[in-house]
Amino acid sequence: MERTPSRRRFLQLAGAGAAACAAAARGPALEASPRAAGEPAAALPFELGMASYTLRSFPVDQAIEMTKRLGLTRICFKDFHLKMDATAEVMAETVAKVKAAGLDLYAGGVIYMKNEAEVDRAFAYAKAAGMKMIVGVPTYELVAYTNGKVQEYDIPVAIHNHGPDNPLFPTPQSAYERIAGLDRRMGLCMDIGHTQRSGVDPSESAEKYIDRLLDVHVKDVSASTAKGTTVEIGRGVIDIPKLMRTLKRIGYAGTLALEYEKDSKDPLPGSAESIGYLR
Amino acid sequence: MERTPSRRRFLQLAGAGAAACAAAARGPALEASPRAAGEPAAALPFELGMASYTLRSFPVDQAIEMTKRLGLTRICFKDFHLKMDATAEVMAETVAKVKAAGLDLYAGGVIYMKNEAEVDRAFAYAKAAGMKMIVGVPTYELVAYTNGKVQEYDIPVAIHNHGPDNPLFPTPQSAYERIAGLDRRMGLCMDIGHTQRSGVDPSESAEKYIDRLLDVHVKDVSASTAKGTTVEIGRGVIDIPKLMRTLKRIGYAGTLALEYEKDSKDPLPGSAESIGYLR
Repeated sequence: MERTPSRRRFLQLAGAGAAACAAAARGPALEASPRAAGEPAAALPFELGMASYTLRSFPVDQAIEMTKRLGLTRICFKDFHLKMDATAEVMAETVAKVKAAGLDLYAGGVIYMKNEAEVDRAFAYAKAAGMKMIVGVPTYELVAYTNGKVQEYDIPVAIHNHGPDNPLFPTPQSAYERIAGLDRRMGLCMDIGHTQRSGVDPSESAEKYIDRLLDVHVKDVSASTAKGTTVEIGRGVIDIPKLMRTLKRIGYAGTLALEYEKDSKDPLPGSAESIGYLR
Repeated sequence: MERTPSRRRFLQLAGAGAAACAAAARGPALEASPRAAGEPAAALPFELGMASYTLRSFPVDQAIEMTKRLGLTRICFKDFHLKMDATAEVMAETVAKVKAAGLDLYAGGVIYMKNEAEVDRAFAYAKAAGMKMIVGVPTYELVAYTNGKVQEYDIPVAIHNHGPDNPLFPTPQSAYERIAGLDRRMGLCMDIGHTQRSGVDPSESAEKYIDRLLDVHVKDVSASTAKGTTVEIGRGVIDIPKLMRTLKRIGYAGTLALEYEKDSKDPLPGSAESIGYLR
């Protein structure tokens, strides 16, 4: 299979569903360049978002408020904030709240799928909530079944990798190998923390798998081994500047969603520091 | 007067007192450069600190805790956290707390001085607390008297500029002109927010006045006029990347202390975002 890391090619291949997730190219270069006083600072060429697992200790209203306060415009809901079995009323009300707050509910996840019924439920849920992508973890046996649902619903699935302490998709490579021959809307959500904890450089994985890279969960970790735990972005061992340069060069056009596992009862300061560092 | 922006010259001229404020040059370049996976990210070549006015709604114990949580190692105490008329006991206890927290109480301020007795008190206070610098605002009439006290105590004074809405030192230039012929330990604490609000580029002021630049208060502002108010660093109009490049190039060796006026009741998220952006 070809792996030309061309953004145009990615968009051609990934189809309408994934294309909807992929924001249009943004102008400003990542590198700071001379500008007139008073002109706003150059923006990142990626959208920053919130993986709402970060805000798991807070009800949905507060999660939305915190996401707004961080200046983010995209959110991926973990089921704490919109239950998988939510009634149609609750779902409509929650989706309306997100929209009223000016946020794009671009995805749902991480959604674990252990049997066909759970795969079915995940797609019905994503469709009902208007999510453009499922960030999911099917079992290996369910990958083919999930592929069929992606084609039926035209909703891409970004498989989220975990780290060396989890046998199910420990690395981006382990997911990429299992989807390589499948529908191109079967892709990856690279968790850069778990990738680094596996001793794998997230920048290298991004470059290798750009043709299927649909989403990125950002964080930092304290060590490049299973012992590494989440820390504020910029305080850990991940080479974030290299990752930003790489993602820009290879034309990544998706979201960088903050999944900050630390400080679950008081996640705002660490999240803010992380977002500030990324900006 | 010469204005060679040489760091060596600055250190030679500024004398022992100011030299104590000026940390040794740090190695890593500001620009991100290729490095091995797992190697920590390059640090800023400046020390980041907290101007405790940011934490004015919190008692000293919490202010210390918040400063530590932000990963900062230097603090400049506003008198909310150590009263000008503190007893010797309270002062010793507070200074010990700061030290026990691993923080360097590098300065006190902003201290306003409206008569000779207040100048005297400021120097006695700084000496008793072991502060290496006073960030202060004497009246114009008291500048010469303050100069005498700088020489008597060997404690530098960094004059803090306010903005276009304050006739007393509205810009770095207005302070520089009044200290140019005085002891070289009479210097500037450039408030980059007020400087930008005066329509002056802080990078240009830094370059012009590097020979007297002893301290910098960092923040961002929403507009380059008197209407500008403090915002999270990176969200406003100040060209922070340019300022970082300029300070590095001209060899600034002092502290960048966060003075974040916004969100006084809940300053940690905005402070964290600002510190993350600077890192």
